[in-house]
Amino acid sequence: MAPADQLPSPLRGIVPPMVTPLSDRDTLDAAGLERLVEHILAGGVQGLFILGTTGEGPSLSYRLRCELVERVCEQVAGRVPVLVGISDTSLVESLNLADYAADAGARAVVLAPPYYYPAGQAELLHYIQHIAAELPLPVFLYNLPSHTKLSFDPETVRRLIEIPNVVGLKDSSAEMIYFHKVRRLAEERADWSLLIGPEELLAEAVLLGAHGGVSGGANLCPRLYVELYRAATRGDTARVAELHAKVIEISQRIYHSADHGAAVIAGLKCALSCLGICDDFMAEPFHRLRDAERRLIQKHLAELELPLGAPRTAGRSPTPG
Amino acid sequence: MAPADQLPSPLRGIVPPMVTPLSDRDTLDAAGLERLVEHILAGGVQGLFILGTTGEGPSLSYRLRCELVERVCEQVAGRVPVLVGISDTSLVESLNLADYAADAGARAVVLAPPYYYPAGQAELLHYIQHIAAELPLPVFLYNLPSHTKLSFDPETVRRLIEIPNVVGLKDSSAEMIYFHKVRRLAEERADWSLLIGPEELLAEAVLLGAHGGVSGGANLCPRLYVELYRAATRGDTARVAELHAKVIEISQRIYHSADHGAAVIAGLKCALSCLGICDDFMAEPFHRLRDAERRLIQKHLAELELPLGAPRTAGRSPTPG
Amino acid sequence: MAPADQLPSPLRGIVPPMVTPLSDRDTLDAAGLERLVEHILAGGVQGLFILGTTGEGPSLSYRLRCELVERVCEQVAGRVPVLVGISDTSLVESLNLADYAADAGARAVVLAPPYYYPAGQAELLHYIQHIAAELPLPVFLYNLPSHTKLSFDPETVRRLIEIPNVVGLKDSSAEMIYFHKVRRLAEERADWSLLIGPEELLAEAVLLGAHGGVSGGANLCPRLYVELYRAATRGDTARVAELHAKVIEISQRIYHSADHGAAVIAGLKCALSCLGICDDFMAEPFHRLRDAERRLIQKHLAELELPLGAPRTAGRSPTPG
Amino acid sequence: MAPADQLPSPLRGIVPPMVTPLSDRDTLDAAGLERLVEHILAGGVQGLFILGTTGEGPSLSYRLRCELVERVCEQVAGRVPVLVGISDTSLVESLNLADYAADAGARAVVLAPPYYYPAGQAELLHYIQHIAAELPLPVFLYNLPSHTKLSFDPETVRRLIEIPNVVGLKDSSAEMIYFHKVRRLAEERADWSLLIGPEELLAEAVLLGAHGGVSGGANLCPRLYVELYRAATRGDTARVAELHAKVIEISQRIYHSADHGAAVIAGLKCALSCLGICDDFMAEPFHRLRDAERRLIQKHLAELELPLGAPRTAGRSPTPG
Repeated sequence: MAPADQLPSPLRGIVPPMVTPLSDRDTLDAAGLERLVEHILAGGVQGLFILGTTGEGPSLSYRLRCELVERVCEQVAGRVPVLVGISDTSLVESLNLADYAADAGARAVVLAPPYYYPAGQAELLHYIQHIAAELPLPVFLYNLPSHTKLSFDPETVRRLIEIPNVVGLKDSSAEMIYFHKVRRLAEERADWSLLIGPEELLAEAVLLGAHGGVSGGANLCPRLYVELYRAATRGDTARVAELHAKVIEISQRIYHSADHGAAVIAGLKCALSCLGICDDFMAEPFHRLRDAERRLIQKHLAELELPLGAPRTAGRSPTPG
Repeated sequence: MAPADQLPSPLRGIVPPMVTPLSDRDTLDAAGLERLVEHILAGGVQGLFILGTTGEGPSLSYRLRCELVERVCEQVAGRVPVLVGISDTSLVESLNLADYAADAGARAVVLAPPYYYPAGQAELLHYIQHIAAELPLPVFLYNLPSHTKLSFDPETVRRLIEIPNVVGLKDSSAEMIYFHKVRRLAEERADWSLLIGPEELLAEAVLLGAHGGVSGGANLCPRLYVELYRAATRGDTARVAELHAKVIEISQRIYHSADHGAAVIAGLKCALSCLGICDDFMAEPFHRLRDAERRLIQKHLAELELPLGAPRTAGRSPTPG
Repeated sequence: MAPADQLPSPLRGIVPPMVTPLSDRDTLDAAGLERLVEHILAGGVQGLFILGTTGEGPSLSYRLRCELVERVCEQVAGRVPVLVGISDTSLVESLNLADYAADAGARAVVLAPPYYYPAGQAELLHYIQHIAAELPLPVFLYNLPSHTKLSFDPETVRRLIEIPNVVGLKDSSAEMIYFHKVRRLAEERADWSLLIGPEELLAEAVLLGAHGGVSGGANLCPRLYVELYRAATRGDTARVAELHAKVIEISQRIYHSADHGAAVIAGLKCALSCLGICDDFMAEPFHRLRDAERRLIQKHLAELELPLGAPRTAGRSPTPG
Repeated sequence: MAPADQLPSPLRGIVPPMVTPLSDRDTLDAAGLERLVEHILAGGVQGLFILGTTGEGPSLSYRLRCELVERVCEQVAGRVPVLVGISDTSLVESLNLADYAADAGARAVVLAPPYYYPAGQAELLHYIQHIAAELPLPVFLYNLPSHTKLSFDPETVRRLIEIPNVVGLKDSSAEMIYFHKVRRLAEERADWSLLIGPEELLAEAVLLGAHGGVSGGANLCPRLYVELYRAATRGDTARVAELHAKVIEISQRIYHSADHGAAVIAGLKCALSCLGICDDFMAEPFHRLRDAERRLIQKHLAELELPLGAPRTAGRSPTPG
């Protein structure tokens, strides 16, 4: 196996949480998926995370999740490590998907707490201890209390950091005080990777010690986040401020067209559709943006002047429904 | 098809949310399941609800959920209607399970909002409208915002009540002001059934117009809840107060041995195991009560003097691990 | 001192939380106040609670609070006990107001936890223990976590019930499971009074053991709540259901004209103003309902056919600004 | 009036939220207060904020609040601007205190939303518009939803920024995505000051455009925060990271000895008492740390090696009760 095929330790850089191009409730937009993967990889990212929150993982059927894992791993072909979200309310189903991902060539899995029952830290600790022992791949913890109703308390992280195949944490809590506390804990493990979720916090997180970011906007404009990451790692605060301002602008203009908890995904998919990259169909209970919102996104995209790479050929453009 | 085989319209009475007897993470305690079903039916209940929150539905593998549906429908054999929980984060998987349930002979499905993404009322309304049109069975809405992060707002209920195969709502919000408002709306549909979830609220809900209750304690002691329901429907407030006091006592003594959001289930399973009815294994991330807690539950059971029906024969008792 | 002047032990019945008629930010509507007190007392209530949440207590200057206490105690003149809200973020100010109330002839004080800092149960317990020892009057605890961010946990109530001059609890949590648990605790003290706050829960609370209610709607229509209380105490479930339906209707039609946490007060004051009883000025940050909302309230009042007592003479009607 | 006496526009740098030294519930520790003011000013701070959350403002009697304003303004004597917290549930009392502060020589007031009733953005907007028109001093908005239950939404800030004597916002929400959005809005007003509350976020806030910080730890160790502020403004990321690590260490070691929402204040007061600066009495419902916790704080102080300035003479040390 070539070195490029391995999971870096720690994993550093931008690892986009890929949206899942759909042409219907239970059908991948296969051509759009291919274009999207190449679009993202061309931006210089250090990994690809599929079936996360941005990827609508929990909304997809298991059949489709497996198909996606298969296709992406095959297409990426070891150019960067593929990380697969296996969060589930059923531990058995998480393990099933993890096994599938390992067979398909994924390099790691990403795991949030089970998200139906309100559990406590004791249950969370034991859960991760149990499942980690059975997982065929290294696992990143995924902290997203807005969706799971449960945060990995620092004291729980302190214990979980002792498990060898727990190799990092993606923090999407958007609570930077929490982040700084966990970062101190993460110093215990030189191979541990602490990644920040919300792209609006990428600048400060990397300036103050994060290993990278799982930035949703990197679906749209991977170079921007890769450059921001690099500017932050070299301490170029002027450049960081400039790129950070662009990130905030994207957030304000693209991610707030809908009024629900998947508005970021709806905005991203709409923008990708405007660019001819993939369909903007969304799994229930959400739906693609309407025409008025879409026109506004198109206007914003034009004004934002993003470094988007080569233009798409019209012939490959999907027909959003 | 015999009349007993139909779903009453409206459904009235006690419809216990059955716990799922497990002997391991992905294995039913089949003998315990048989005993439990008979124990519950012997109490005079008007239906059986499986794969709900109390049934640990979301924590079980899809394979096991299907096995449970199959076994229960076969055993119940039309004596009471079987209702099957199909709540899921993926609409496709909800439909898959509903189809399975219909084929197995279930009489209705029960559906909470998808529980991963924070959605709004507009999404919830469209979601139910979409899925209801495709369901092969009548559907009860399931309101449980503590677990799903989303309540069926009265205005949304007003709209959903217009869908013919939406036949009722189980309210587990524990918010009685909300309940009273929804009850007024439910008057619009004579065939609609409004059921109360938390058994601690069964007395007042039925006194003030609920059609029945989905009382977890009816796993343990179905007669108590059936009698309370009957006393309330005939306006016997003295008897209601007496039985209500017993219900509160069970709640305080049996359901608070653990300190997490599945403590009720842990207490119920432990008590059922103490009575020799079924195993108390719990799906991750939870676990059965420990010895000290179990001894306390045994003591409480003895003191509570519940009307439990005939004693179990020792030979049928499982060996809890 | 005449017996009528004493605080009954336990206090039973309807104790309206009086709105505070204002003609300006720091000026009482003195004539309206007089009319309102008589209107309420004519309805057969068992006490009068001023400077509570409905009374906009925390929004008023200390000077005005004292003036109100003075005027109300003088006017009521022992016909029913007057209870004075002394909740404050500063213990010293609570004590100051309690002393003032005692001198003016109030019979009890009502005290919520201090509501600025998020405190815990240990702090709450010590706080009540400290202040109770210094209060010149019996004290009712006031549970309103939506406003104070802190509930009196049952275990804390168990401890506080041991303090002689803590004589009851007004529960405005709207959580009936909590209520039932506290009610069991309250059985320890025969002189303890457990009162329900939200009027939408008055029926069930009294049916299941509450001593009475602090019903905001009794500002408008005291007889309705007094009758509901009486029907519930004598177990007349048919009459309870009928009156309860009326209460829910008032709640839905009068209390939801505004979209904020003081909508009930705004609706009550508007309705009282429509009836010519008092001004509907509200202390900042709230304001009286606008004309369109007011017309709707007038329409609802006409349709509701409330037992409102004798009509007001036009000459005494205030001019709402 | 000397230039040093003016409020800079915008205000920049560290503006410590001073703790209020108390020797009893309603008595200032006057000698401790004097020492504390000098200790803080010696650290190079750019202002002094009294009667904020850290200052236990809402827990103090009005009499004592006025005494504190008087004493501090007199002692500071224009060396830095004094800002006075006037947040209150009663607008009238806020105005009273603001007038007092203006007369005493304060340079600005700080105002959070009224914190008892759950209000909405419309009420908040009107409230600030009304009160700002009547305030005798420039006002800083104070965003602290954990205590007030209400945040200044960006859209509300956009409107409030148009009011001339609203001169800045102190954001204590700890939500950095929010902060970045508000920062963009603040660019509209060159004289507007955006200050960050939680000191754990001081580094990133200043690196990304905040004008300064209201850092509680600057009671204890003002130089540390002043230095961090300066390193961040000159883009010295290595030095920032070093000082930020120290700030996080203080937070973890000093602010978590108690388990309630005033733990930071308890830790700060304890540490100041250990250093002989002032008494550690706390207003109800809180209390000073106990001996075991105090010994731990002393140990941490020794290990942290903070740049604390000249040692206190034993003779000036208070006797903590």
